[in-house]
Amino acid sequence: MHARERYISAPGKSILHGEHAVVHGKVALAVSLNLRTYLRLQATSAGKVCVNLPNIDTFLSWDITALKSLLSGWKADCSSSELDSNLVKRLREFMAITDGSTDTRSMAVLAFLYIYLSVFADAEVLPSLSVCVWSELPTGAGLGSSAAFSVCLSAALLSARGTISTPLIQQQNTARWSDAELELINKWAFQGEKIIHGNPSGVDNAVSTWGGVLRYHAGMITPLSRVPTLRILLTNTKVPRSTKVLVSGVKDKINKYPSVMTPVLDSVDAVSQACEQTLADMATEGASTKHYNILEDLIDINQHHLNVMGVGHSSLDTLCRVTLAHGLHSKLTGAGGGGCGITLLRPETEPSVVQAAVQELKEAGFECWETSLGGPGVLLHSSNSITQDTLSILTSY
Amino acid sequence: MHARERYISAPGKSILHGEHAVVHGKVALAVSLNLRTYLRLQATSAGKVCVNLPNIDTFLSWDITALKSLLSGWKADCSSSELDSNLVKRLREFMAITDGSTDTRSMAVLAFLYIYLSVFADAEVLPSLSVCVWSELPTGAGLGSSAAFSVCLSAALLSARGTISTPLIQQQNTARWSDAELELINKWAFQGEKIIHGNPSGVDNAVSTWGGVLRYHAGMITPLSRVPTLRILLTNTKVPRSTKVLVSGVKDKINKYPSVMTPVLDSVDAVSQACEQTLADMATEGASTKHYNILEDLIDINQHHLNVMGVGHSSLDTLCRVTLAHGLHSKLTGAGGGGCGITLLRPETEPSVVQAAVQELKEAGFECWETSLGGPGVLLHSSNSITQDTLSILTSY
Repeated sequence: MHARERYISAPGKSILHGEHAVVHGKVALAVSLNLRTYLRLQATSAGKVCVNLPNIDTFLSWDITALKSLLSGWKADCSSSELDSNLVKRLREFMAITDGSTDTRSMAVLAFLYIYLSVFADAEVLPSLSVCVWSELPTGAGLGSSAAFSVCLSAALLSARGTISTPLIQQQNTARWSDAELELINKWAFQGEKIIHGNPSGVDNAVSTWGGVLRYHAGMITPLSRVPTLRILLTNTKVPRSTKVLVSGVKDKINKYPSVMTPVLDSVDAVSQACEQTLADMATEGASTKHYNILEDLIDINQHHLNVMGVGHSSLDTLCRVTLAHGLHSKLTGAGGGGCGITLLRPETEPSVVQAAVQELKEAGFECWETSLGGPGVLLHSSNSITQDTLSILTSY
Repeated sequence: MHARERYISAPGKSILHGEHAVVHGKVALAVSLNLRTYLRLQATSAGKVCVNLPNIDTFLSWDITALKSLLSGWKADCSSSELDSNLVKRLREFMAITDGSTDTRSMAVLAFLYIYLSVFADAEVLPSLSVCVWSELPTGAGLGSSAAFSVCLSAALLSARGTISTPLIQQQNTARWSDAELELINKWAFQGEKIIHGNPSGVDNAVSTWGGVLRYHAGMITPLSRVPTLRILLTNTKVPRSTKVLVSGVKDKINKYPSVMTPVLDSVDAVSQACEQTLADMATEGASTKHYNILEDLIDINQHHLNVMGVGHSSLDTLCRVTLAHGLHSKLTGAGGGGCGITLLRPETEPSVVQAAVQELKEAGFECWETSLGGPGVLLHSSNSITQDTLSILTSY
């Protein structure tokens, strides 16, 4: 252990364009969402490992000796990109998780223990520590809360182990890791995602690790080199939906009307590519009204296309209508059928305009956050770079 | 003159699919709208020609001798498909229409006099007659009211001249003309449309003449052989719009986002073709729930595409939202940006459902008609096949 205490944060993710179309071989743009998950790791001398996850009312601790016994006769294979099924099996038994259960709390703790044991497997001793993770992200809303959780865990445990550095120097508020270290954080975060989700695409943990915008196409994830930060309003309609049912509905519609739907997917692909180009132009030329006009056009067009695919919802229509009445453009993000939507705010959009829109959206029963897209990925923090509210939650367990 | 009195009607038109896309070489389906224009022609011995157009408060009459003088030294060229510019010039002078004026009333009367003089130019005498035309169609709403007017005039005057037959036999309520006669009616109606509109496509008069559904593609007009009649609700949002501005806006958007917009036009083309196929299937197999489900899907998809083209309007969104709340599917028809929308009604849609939707649409400030698409084109009527209300209007002038 190199420090008694460390603070780490990682962002959520939003899909800017290309949701659903990506399943059919088209480009999608995933972007970091600056609603962050915060982690505090504290080295202790209690001979225990404590995990506190206040968002999901989970507070657990184990004796180091009990955890040590899980490693007997087991050899970590860090070269493999696959989950170690033997370790997962031991952990499920240890935690008494019934076969087939994928309960959120159990999976979150399983992910923690898996990464903890894997990272420290070849250490001389298993360290005694306490971890508290708290998130601004709503869970299960398609905003990558599990990936942000896994990325924070991965960065904290790798850094505690000394596998990656602790780059924060005195007087610095935040620090990032090197590309090679980020690769390692992402790799272990992906293991966490696999435990929580079964068969994740790897996009969520990559966005949470690198931040900015990632292009996702045919299984390949490519970070865009330079992107602007976009001010947005994120709205959760709180209408529950099944991603699986929505994805299968789109597939059915493509099969039913191939000549109608195939060009729609092509148009969505072109929207993603036009957006990518515009973001690159904004980064090199400086953002202007012209760029925001294009971004708004693309948002409107894609929202209509998503409606054509059948993944719209009256709650999302309400979001679009209410925000448009204030001159703001919105689209669903992610699976659709309810869930979340994003509303682009221009740099010059007056706070009073945003407040008025938020007021109406709250009256419609929605939850709103004024935040941004495209911000940094995983960060190491000094305690004074974390808001007092967040700090008091992280230090109260 | 073969009869002292004759009654004729012709339908309006609606665009089922392909508005705007047709400008860019895609298929459009134009369909007869069973809001009809009615004409009564009465042979008189007053030595006068009277025209009564109560919809536009126009009541005029001329001495036969004055009209006769317009023909001196002029030779009708019925072989040409072009307007006779010499006759148009004489008529504009006769009616004292200022240069460049395209005032609706003047153009309607000009169209009447043009067809009257052309059709009777080589007759021994110009007949003394009185014509009254009254329409269920709102004017200037993109529903082909001028074409229905021209078709009624053309059929009435050609039939009065004896150029085409008067096919109604005793005990019959309505009768149609032969294909060759319809060709002639359409040809002269097109001249009327040219006078009223300057540069019409010829689709409106063709739909009003033939009825049913016409496929319009790259300047070619093809009637579909067998089509079902579709029950609809027609809604006029009464939001004024400029077709020219809307058409040019779509062109600008295609130029700005070619890779995004080109596939959208392809998808609209596929929608029109899928609709054409479904209508053919309904005519041969008999209409079923399956067919109506497809028609509804295509309506929804095209409405989203029209929004992508930028020709939607919040009033049309209201139409779609209100009708969908009653399980009914709507799209704009024609230019968009306000104007009219059509709502498909299934054969089994309860009158109470339609009434409830109409009530809400009226409360939103709209005007609604429950009518049908795909009905007959120009018809010759016995007086007892015309409703008492219409008859009393036609006979009161």
